[in-house]
Amino acid sequence: MEFKGIKHIDSGNFIHRYDIQYETRDHKEKIYEIVSRDPDITSLEELSDWSSKTVCIIGLSRNHNRILLNREYQMAIGDWVYNFPSGLIDKGETPTEAAKRELMEETGLHFVKRIVRLKSSFNSIGLSNESTSCVIAIVDGDIQGSDSSFEEIQGVWLSKNDVKELLKTAKMSARAQLFCFLWVYGDLSLDRFYEEQEDFGKGNLR
Amino acid sequence: MEFKGIKHIDSGNFIHRYDIQYETRDHKEKIYEIVSRDPDITSLEELSDWSSKTVCIIGLSRNHNRILLNREYQMAIGDWVYNFPSGLIDKGETPTEAAKRELMEETGLHFVKRIVRLKSSFNSIGLSNESTSCVIAIVDGDIQGSDSSFEEIQGVWLSKNDVKELLKTAKMSARAQLFCFLWVYGDLSLDRFYEEQEDFGKGNLR
Repeated sequence: MEFKGIKHIDSGNFIHRYDIQYETRDHKEKIYEIVSRDPDITSLEELSDWSSKTVCIIGLSRNHNRILLNREYQMAIGDWVYNFPSGLIDKGETPTEAAKRELMEETGLHFVKRIVRLKSSFNSIGLSNESTSCVIAIVDGDIQGSDSSFEEIQGVWLSKNDVKELLKTAKMSARAQLFCFLWVYGDLSLDRFYEEQEDFGKGNLR
Repeated sequence: MEFKGIKHIDSGNFIHRYDIQYETRDHKEKIYEIVSRDPDITSLEELSDWSSKTVCIIGLSRNHNRILLNREYQMAIGDWVYNFPSGLIDKGETPTEAAKRELMEETGLHFVKRIVRLKSSFNSIGLSNESTSCVIAIVDGDIQGSDSSFEEIQGVWLSKNDVKELLKTAKMSARAQLFCFLWVYGDLSLDRFYEEQEDFGKGNLR
């Protein structure tokens, strides 16, 4: 498949729809529809830029026996859903700085120690170029509710037994579900994460 | 926040944009923009439906020392990306049946044994109601290339060392990145998955 061009079709205030023109291996011209949060993509370089624009934080307690999730109302799915604290990276922030700030804003908790930061990954590769970088960290403190009237978010500390119940009954984001499942059922050890963090935390990160 | 209504704004052939009208706790009327693959959402019930429409398969080799990923070209991100085999659930199929079919179509591999199926989870909760159910399974056989000219997909068996490199250099889907990271660095044991699978495989699944 060969990218031939991208055409802006329609925009809301936050979501922008594009048609990508491409040619198949057998030389047929095709259109692929996508959406993006970026309002002015005009080239393949802009479309495929994967520098982190959003971050999520996977927070564990000091002894690793509790995980932090937000229970939040999300209009896009019309329901309550469990997710990791997350948000936009502000101009000039590193993803880890953004993770610390979002953690404090959404839950009132403190960032104790970074375990690892993952590169930016793509939330929905068939639909959008949206990507998010995850920071896995030890976090601590007392949960405070968010005081914004524009969002309904409540942080919760959950034990492995709590998470088992959620996995069977609750709506969850893809990352929260998969991490929680492996944390509960995978006999996950975190010890090796620390050893490797430098490999993930240096220049090759986006 | 209270849902007040949903308005269809714009459609392509595959992606549909809506405005959700809602009221904040302090009684302000607001609009939240989303996209969906569903062309005719008119109610909260339709918006928040989380029955699985797409599936992905996390395939491991018989001795758990290789993981199966697809290297595929995705127009939405304008680049090559690593992802689990995935696709739409056809009418009348269970998610596990769809996982077996997609596995065979995209890679030529056989489905040996289901480890667990997770409930449907949401790919991008701030943007879309798109959701996917993951089937974790043992898979086996020789990889065959997909012969469709509409997609460029190549299945690859990867060792833990291969995956370590990808995590530092490659674009990956959110689920593929997170599972691969924990598989490589988390000392993940799969033994307990089998014991619990019945809890996940029965009626409470969507």
